[in-house]
Parts: sequence; C-alpha cells; structure tokens
Amino acid sequence: MSPGGFASGGDVTGVHPAWLPPEAMRPIGARTVSVHGDGLDTVRAEVRQACDRHGGAVVAGGADLVLTLSGVDTGPDGFVVSRDGVVTTVAAEDPAGLLYGLFHVARVGEAAFGAPHPPGTHRPAHGRRMLDHWDNVDVHPVMGQVERGYSGGSLFWDGGALRADLTRVTAYARLLAACGVNAVTVNNVNVHATETLLLTDRLADIATIADLLRPYHIRMHLAVNFAAPVADLGTADPLDARVQAWWATATDGVYAAIPDFGGYVVKADSEGQPGPYGYGRDHADGANALAAALAPHGGVVHWRAFVYDHRQDWRDRTTDRARAAYEHFAPLDGRFLGNVIVQVKHGPIDFQVREPVSPLIAAMPATDVAVEVQVTQEYTGQQRHVCYLAPMWSEVLRTIRTAGPVGVSNAGDDPFWTGHPLAQANLYAFGRLAWAPDLDPREVLDEWIGLTFPGTPDVVGETLHAVMDDSWRTYEDYTAPLGVGFMVRPGHHYGPDVDGYEYTPWGTYHFADRDGVGVDRTCATGTGFTGQYPPVLARLYESVHDCPDELLLFFHHVPYGHVLHDGGTVIQHIYDTHFAGADAVAAMRDRWAALPADLVGPAFAARVADLLDEQVRGAAEWRDQITAYFFRKSGVRDAHGRRIP
Amino acid sequence: MSPGGFASGGDVTGVHPAWLPPEAMRPIGARTVSVHGDGLDTVRAEVRQACDRHGGAVVAGGADLVLTLSGVDTGPDGFVVSRDGVVTTVAAEDPAGLLYGLFHVARVGEAAFGAPHPPGTHRPAHGRRMLDHWDNVDVHPVMGQVERGYSGGSLFWDGGALRADLTRVTAYARLLAACGVNAVTVNNVNVHATETLLLTDRLADIATIADLLRPYHIRMHLAVNFAAPVADLGTADPLDARVQAWWATATDGVYAAIPDFGGYVVKADSEGQPGPYGYGRDHADGANALAAALAPHGGVVHWRAFVYDHRQDWRDRTTDRARAAYEHFAPLDGRFLGNVIVQVKHGPIDFQVREPVSPLIAAMPATDVAVEVQVTQEYTGQQRHVCYLAPMWSEVLRTIRTAGPVGVSNAGDDPFWTGHPLAQANLYAFGRLAWAPDLDPREVLDEWIGLTFPGTPDVVGETLHAVMDDSWRTYEDYTAPLGVGFMVRPGHHYGPDVDGYEYTPWGTYHFADRDGVGVDRTCATGTGFTGQYPPVLARLYESVHDCPDELLLFFHHVPYGHVLHDGGTVIQHIYDTHFAGADAVAAMRDRWAALPADLVGPAFAARVADLLDEQVRGAAEWRDQITAYFFRKSGVRDAHGRRIP
Repeated sequence: MSPGGFASGGDVTGVHPAWLPPEAMRPIGARTVSVHGDGLDTVRAEVRQACDRHGGAVVAGGADLVLTLSGVDTGPDGFVVSRDGVVTTVAAEDPAGLLYGLFHVARVGEAAFGAPHPPGTHRPAHGRRMLDHWDNVDVHPVMGQVERGYSGGSLFWDGGALRADLTRVTAYARLLAACGVNAVTVNNVNVHATETLLLTDRLADIATIADLLRPYHIRMHLAVNFAAPVADLGTADPLDARVQAWWATATDGVYAAIPDFGGYVVKADSEGQPGPYGYGRDHADGANALAAALAPHGGVVHWRAFVYDHRQDWRDRTTDRARAAYEHFAPLDGRFLGNVIVQVKHGPIDFQVREPVSPLIAAMPATDVAVEVQVTQEYTGQQRHVCYLAPMWSEVLRTIRTAGPVGVSNAGDDPFWTGHPLAQANLYAFGRLAWAPDLDPREVLDEWIGLTFPGTPDVVGETLHAVMDDSWRTYEDYTAPLGVGFMVRPGHHYGPDVDGYEYTPWGTYHFADRDGVGVDRTCATGTGFTGQYPPVLARLYESVHDCPDELLLFFHHVPYGHVLHDGGTVIQHIYDTHFAGADAVAAMRDRWAALPADLVGPAFAARVADLLDEQVRGAAEWRDQITAYFFRKSGVRDAHGRRIP
Repeated sequence: MSPGGFASGGDVTGVHPAWLPPEAMRPIGARTVSVHGDGLDTVRAEVRQACDRHGGAVVAGGADLVLTLSGVDTGPDGFVVSRDGVVTTVAAEDPAGLLYGLFHVARVGEAAFGAPHPPGTHRPAHGRRMLDHWDNVDVHPVMGQVERGYSGGSLFWDGGALRADLTRVTAYARLLAACGVNAVTVNNVNVHATETLLLTDRLADIATIADLLRPYHIRMHLAVNFAAPVADLGTADPLDARVQAWWATATDGVYAAIPDFGGYVVKADSEGQPGPYGYGRDHADGANALAAALAPHGGVVHWRAFVYDHRQDWRDRTTDRARAAYEHFAPLDGRFLGNVIVQVKHGPIDFQVREPVSPLIAAMPATDVAVEVQVTQEYTGQQRHVCYLAPMWSEVLRTIRTAGPVGVSNAGDDPFWTGHPLAQANLYAFGRLAWAPDLDPREVLDEWIGLTFPGTPDVVGETLHAVMDDSWRTYEDYTAPLGVGFMVRPGHHYGPDVDGYEYTPWGTYHFADRDGVGVDRTCATGTGFTGQYPPVLARLYESVHDCPDELLLFFHHVPYGHVLHDGGTVIQHIYDTHFAGADAVAAMRDRWAALPADLVGPAFAARVADLLDEQVRGAAEWRDQITAYFFRKSGVRDAHGRRIP
C-alpha cells in the first residue's frame, strides 16, 4: 500500500484516482479498438494503456470500437457516437472531440456496446469550460498557498516556485478532460507581488504547466495584475499608449512561449486590487486595453464584475452591496471589445448557499458574460461538510445562456484531491454542467459514482445518493434561513457567527432586531435592488407575498411572525429548518456508517466518516447558535418545545 | 535630524528618549557631584555623562551633591536623601539603592537643592518589580514577533535570533531603572519550539542580554516550557526523579552562565500549553519541581494562575471561567515551596478594562502571590487609544499587599518605544507603582511629564493631564458598560463585536437577550462565583442592590430597566456613557490640537495627533455598535433622542 493507503492503479502513487480508476476504462480496454486520424497521441495512449491493463488490443481494423477523425460536422470538441450492433463508432472533427468521445464511452460503460443506435451528436453547450485556481505562488501570510483552499497545497506551486514533481498536473488534466473542462487559470485572481511576475519574468514556469495541460486539450489562462505596467512605466492608465504597448509586448511574449495560450483573468478595483478607477477610467477602458493586446493572438480577457465598496459604512442602510456589480457594469454594455468576457458571480453578493441569480447576467445583451460559481466550498462547508453543489449550479446554469461558466477549483495536493472525498463530485459535476447545463444533477452523480466505483454493488450508489442528493439543501437548512447569508465567522468563514459581519464595512447584513429580520431591497421602501431585474422577476421579488420563501429575507425585512407560503411563521421556520438540518446530517452519518468500508476503499471510507463526525458537530453548533440568537432576539419559544440553549 | 525626526541627545539615534532626555539629568549635571563607594560604575557613568553635558563637575569633595554608599540601613534598593542647606546627600546600602537615589534626584529636580530637610528614607514596597515580555524569538505565524505587541518588533529578538544591534537594550534598562523595575523576562509565556531552547542550547543569547541589564541592576528571568524535558526523557512528570534531575542540571547551566539569574516564569496547563495535569499532578507538584532546581541558586519560579477551560461549551451556563483560577489554586495554598510565586492576573477573567479584583489574591495566605497587570494595551486600545492605566492599577495595588506586581511590557522597537507616545507613561507608571503603590496616579503622571518634558511651559502638563487623567474611565465609557467585557473582535481584540465571543468556547459571555443583560455570578441563583470572596466582599457583590454599578453586569443579569444608584436605568446608562465617552475623546483631540507642537517635539505631537484621529473614529464605532446592538435587542429608545444607527 502507498502512504495514502490506496491500492496501486491510480496514475500517481499514493493519490486517489478520483473518477478515473483503471477499472473505469475497462469497457474500452477489454475490447479491440482502432484509432484513425492524426494528432491523436493522447487518444492512442489512453487506448493503449486501457488495453494493456484489461486484455484488449489496438487493431488496425475489425475492431469493437472505432475512434475516427472524419466525416462529421460537430463543431469544436463535439463528437458523434453510433452503434451498428457489432461496432461502436466515435467520430469527431478534431482531436479534442475524439478525446471527449473516448471518455464518453468510459462513462456510458458496457451500455455503449449494447443495442444498436443511430448516430447521436454531442456538442458542448459552451466552447470554454474554465476552472480558476486561487493558488498563490508564494505562500501568502494570511491566505496560505491556496486562497480559500481546503485541499492542501497547490497542484502547481510550492512555496514560491513551480513544484518539483508535476506528475499530478498531468493526472489532473486527464481528470478535467474526462469531465469536459478545457481551460484553467493557474494563479489567484488576487495577484500578489511574486505572481505579478508570472506574466513576464517567470513565463517559463507558465509554459511548463501549459505543456502538461496541452495533451488533454486544456488551454492555459493567467490571472494578471492590472497594475503590472507600473513597475516599468509608473502608470497603468489603460488609455495611455505606452501602457497599451506594454500589454502588447508582454502578450506577444506570452504567445511566443505558449502559442495556444487562452488569455487573462482580471480582478480589478475590487477588495484592494488596482484597476482603471485609479486612473479615472472605467472597466471597459481597462478590459479593452488588455483585450486589444490579446486579440491578434485569439486570446480573451475574463474581466470580473466582482466590484463593490468593501469599506461601506454599516450605519448607512441606503447603500446595498447587492446593487454594485450591476451599477458598475450594466452601463458599459456594448463598449467591450469582442474578446472581453465579463465574469459575473452567480449571485449578487458572494457565493452564499442561497442567493437569487445576479441581475447583471441578464443586463448585458451586447456583452459576453460568464457565470462564476465556487466549486471550492468557502461558504458551503469548506470541504469538511458534504455539500453536493450541482443542484444549485443547475438552477442557475440551465436557465441562463452565457459565454460559459467558470468554476473556482476545489482541488489541491490532498491525496483525495479535494479534502473531502465526496467533494470530488463537485469538481466532476462542474465540468459536466459546463458541457451540458441541462443534465439532471442526480444523473451527474450517477455518472461520477459509476466511474469512481465501477462494478460495485448497488448499495454504494444508494448510499452516496442518500448522503449527497439533498446535501446542499440540508446545508442551507442548518445554516442560512430564508435567503439570509453571511452569518459566518469573519475571516475564515467556517462556522456560525450571526452578527460576525453585521457591524462591519463588508456590506453583508441581516438587520435582525427584536421585531424582525431581513434586508428590504424593494423599490417601494428599500434599497431598490429589485429594480435591477427584468420586469417579471422584479415584480416577483418586490412583492412580500409572491417572493419565494427561500429568498424572502434576501429581499424583505419582515416580522418574526410573518407567515410563509406553507402557513408557518418565519421564526418557527428558522427553528424547524435548523433542527431538521442537524438531524439530517446525523442521518447522513448513520447511513455512511452502514456502508461496508471495503466497497469504497478503507481510506476513502474513513476520511468521509471522520468528516461526517465534524459535520454532525458543526451542524449542531449552527443549529444551536442560530436558534439561540433568534430566540434571544425574538423571545418566541419553539412551538415544539425543543431545547434552545 | 535623525530618521525618526528627533533632535540629537537621546541615547539611541532616531529613538525618542522617553523619560530620560538629556535635560532630565540637568539638575545633577549642572552641579558639582562626588560619588563614594565601590561597585558604582553605573552611578559614576551617569554622573559623568550628565556633568559633561550640563557643565557640572565630578569632584572629590565639597560637592553640591554627595552620593555615598555608607551609614544607612535601608534594606535592598532603598536610599536616604537629606539636605543641610548646602549639600544634598543621597546614601544607600547597596549600589542599586544609590542608582535609584540618583534617578530620584533627577525626578525631584531643582527642588532637591532647595530648602534643607532631614533624612528621608525611600524603600520599595516590593523587592521584585518585574516586567514580562511576550516576545517571541521566531516570528510566530499568528502572533508575530511580539504577542499582543503594539510597538513594533522585539527589543531583544529579530526573526529567530538575538538582534544584531542591542544598543536599545541598554537604553531600555536605563529607562526601567529610572522608574524602579528590577526584573525582566525576555520571552513570551507561550513558549514555542525555538524559545524552548533558550534554556539550554541558546543560553549564550540569554547571557548576552543579562550582561546588558546587569549594570542597571535588572535581573534576567526566563519563560520556560514545562514540557522541555520531554525531548530528552519522553516525560515532564514533575514527580519523576529524572525530570527533577533534568531541571537541576539545566538550572545549574543557567546559573553557570548568569550567576545573578532571577528565575523562571511558567504558563502551564493554560490555553494549550503543557503542564502537570498531563501527568496527573497538580500545579504545586509542577511549580515545586522547578523551584527545587532554582532554590540552591536563590532563584524563584513565577507560576501563573491563568488556568481555565478554553474549550468551554457556551451552552452550559453553570460553568464560569471567573471561578477557574481560584478553583485550581486556592486548594493548593501551603503546598508550594518558599521560592514559588503564584502569579495571578488582577481580575478573574483576562485584563478587561473593568473587572473586580481576583478572589484568588486573598485566598492564598500561605503563598507568595504576585499580581499581574497588562501594561501592553491588549484590551484597552492597543496603544492606538490613549488609556492611562495607573488609576486602574492603583485601585488594585494599593489595597493588596503581595509579593510584587508583574507587568506585561508594552515596549518594542518603535521609535517611541510604545507605539502611542503617551503609552510611555503606562510603562513609567507601572515601575513607580510597583515601587510605591500608594502614589497618586496624577502625581506619577506629573513625574513622567517633568522628566519627559523638562522645563516646558505649564500648558504641556495641563494638556497632558486633560488628555490622560481620565482616559481609562473614558475608554471604559465608550467600550464596556457596567462591568461587562469581551465585546471585542475575536482574535486581534481591537474594536467592538458585541457577540464576537458570545457563542464561543472561551467562557466570556454577556448573555444579552431582548429582556436584559449580564452574568449571574451570585450564590443564590448564579454560578456561585461571589462565594469565592471574603465575606464582606461576597455580601457586597451578591446583592444586586449593593453591588457597585461599575460591576453590576459582571455579577448580575438584570432587566434593561433595572435602576442604578444614580436613578437611571441600565439601558439609558449604556446609551449615556457611550455618547459621553465618544464626546470625551473628541474633546481630547481638540485639546491636543491646541498644544503648540514644538513644545513636545513635532514628531511626538504628530504621532499623538494621528492616533487621536483613530481614537475618535474608534470611539464613535464603539458607541454606534454598542448602542445599535442594545437598541435592536431592547427596543428602548434613547431618552435624549440621539441618533442610534
């Protein structure tokens, strides 16, 4: 056994194979396979490795499975699968498409070699399916190696330098390709001093990583510091010709080293990062300066819309952080160059477990908009709690058609990649929903289970579904009632502190007093945020009667006795959901404990069990703090007489 | 001008001279002085330097000032001053006494050479007057170089090693001697890995510092790790003969290097530090093991009584952290060896701006007890707010006779020594009250003003008194109402967060709900803490009617409408004191602004002015958060209609 306790077979010793254990490729490797076309080194290598392991063979003709670059018109990354009763054929128009087709066969498994079926075409909903890593090159004094990282160190960086052993980058690229991700940013959007130099002095490091991602058709992106030209020019004014020339030269250098480089990611004028406002310019000016440098090379700028006043006066109830992204960006619609993508967090605040969709996403019809979701569980249990996020993302992604989602990665050098082994499913699901937003989250979980635990008895899948399917709503139940968020410990954001952000400059308040709770964001009496939505939604959210219960306190300040659509009061709902949520976590732990450990591997089973203990403790703490807080404020007793501390 | 902006004359370039500017020694240096006796190198050097600067002369006889080691019986450190109309004579029985006498003459100034007076004897109330430095050798990842340090880096250590330039240690020793301190611990009571080795491998560093302190009659003490023997023996069981031998050998080594070494300071079984409980022993066993090793050399152990459960369940209202020190230590009275000093924080919790005196101090008649006060302003404005602490210490020290106070030092490598220039007065006052607890805090401030700003117009002293005299009560007014504490931001402890510690394991609660606030610590209905006091105090605190208002919420949970001795309600008192406190700070700023900067030096004036801006901001923030919090909870409006956010 390796140090991590895993049987051999994963690609990296001591590291869990995630959703690509050797057995996952058996449906391919146990057969005869022929591969036709050029530029298919990765596909051929995958097939050869699978056949070597599982007794199949790579053949020139007469194969069970034919993988071919020809005769189809799928568009980039797409593929066509057909079966004539004897042969399964996967055809694509580019090598990436054929690689995705190959992993599709692994996902479908033996069923891909069953009944005949006519050609079925698979095309990604989005051409770019990107993960952003918030990895620092240097260890940051507060944020460490990975900002909001709950999975150990960075896969790329180690204390100021590129990791000596980059084997896991290749394994990671393979995992990402198998779920559909094709773009990766390898450094934190908060670009500190060392990381600023990646663009110039340390380009060789970036090129080394790009070389490892390329075989899996993943393009390298880079988070850059808007102020990078200052060191040379004393200014970063985006309308200054010298600054524009600086970006052009720097970008030429990047493409000389990495011809298929994807582009830049920028966090500007946000939480202390420099930006165009410092020069009296706006975000279109800023984004366009970088976009112009990238355009000749086919690169793009992801320009984040996460811009707000993080030094707000909590006494001022008229300012509303929820309004900020829209106010800063909506007026700029139409002014961005064609290769600018405005990257918008899915909700108007900041990755809370429950938020309405950001109104900005619908407010820029003339701009490419990417929706950003947080795969890393900053506000959803920090990979110590089970919280399968696909149902949340699905609600956003299936209803909105944008330039392509961006996920903040949850992977690190942890032996299980993601700290909590079950958080692997979030990474997998992000890729799959980026490819096909209409997928049912339960189906995606089925896929993940089938690949990760091929050939195991039904009890494995049943247990995982029981533990994971509703885990997002369970997390919501024991943490954030009715759309109120940010009742977390300031700084690290783990565990409850109802007033932790209430009297701070961060713009994240609940306004609970002895009479009621919630933020009045209506146009009639509140901050006017509802007015940023298209009329149908604006009317829905504006009305305290029609507003969906789960968003009630996000949009309205109501008395504790306010009656919800189910007939119960707000205060009783707070009590009921918190007791129910904590009970559900206890049930999750019991369910997991009943699963024989050898079915998922002893190390996997033990890590999940340990973390469920922490989740049971944490859920009880959330329940007790929230119920105690609101009981002390409201004075209303629980209708069921349960103990509130 | 030096980089710090100070005129030359201080002992260290670029560093403010604090209470020993050259002019402070003019009353001595402008005269003829004779010095008689052996071992007076430091006294002679001080006199020579003063005379060189101010035109006087060192003479063999016929002097204005005679300093002599003879003919008196003062006890250690004491001195006798007399004047016959022509000659002022200072006599002492040991060199330390004569040095203190010399600084006494500087403090008294020209008046020491005025009217004749018979011999007046000056003896310190306490033989040991000690400062503990919470300085780390290594930079600690959370606490930095100095734990709870608000004055820059350590005077002794710099990033893992002894500082290259130790000039300031000599200057610091001189300042301490001039206020009466004669013992210093040079490392943090939280003894981390590197610091554990000071006792053994890095003894040379300690000896180097001791050599610099010795000329000023300051003895070196060392904070040691109770578990230090574990590395060699695998155990630190204090009853294990091998452990006892280990301490004896280590201590012999210390005394071989530092013959006048003072002893050890130990924080054991506290906030994660190891201790005797880990071996099933008690604190008498632990302290005695170290004391036995020190006894042959005349050294002492300061054994801290700051022992409590820092993983308390906030839901459990029966556990009371205030009871902890008494419960752990009172039963051990009589069991400690004669060279053990139990070091007790002045209040039962932890250095809050208002606490009752710890009942443990009166509960160990057969034990030497030292009272520990926090000169460093962790909970009193962190040397960004003016808070002259002598009035608080005076209340404790003048009523209790113990083995000698210990202060946690507020000094660092800041150009002003203490961050806030006015916090120098706290360091000075600690030394003076340790020597003479009955001194009036205003007189001590007068002394500090006279030494620090000799010869300046009255407006300097008037301004400093106006800003500082009541600053402790002002700080109390705008922060902690009626004895409730710990409404601070967790972690750094700067600024308000009313519920910051309310639902945590730290045992520091206020139990505010919509009806009332405070901790019931009575015997009748509460935690029984009042029963730890002697009967007179126990009865006083037990009674909600007799309990002093300023401690009401420390001992009682009362409704917001509870009427205080002045006829006002608790809630209105909260409002009134917070508005008044913030107004008082604004007045302090105005007063300071009216003082011509050149009278105290432009750098000094500017630093104080900048910090008063921050204090005005901070006091308004405290006022607004506390009033808003209690208004939201109580629903009671301010009787004067002032704005509560």
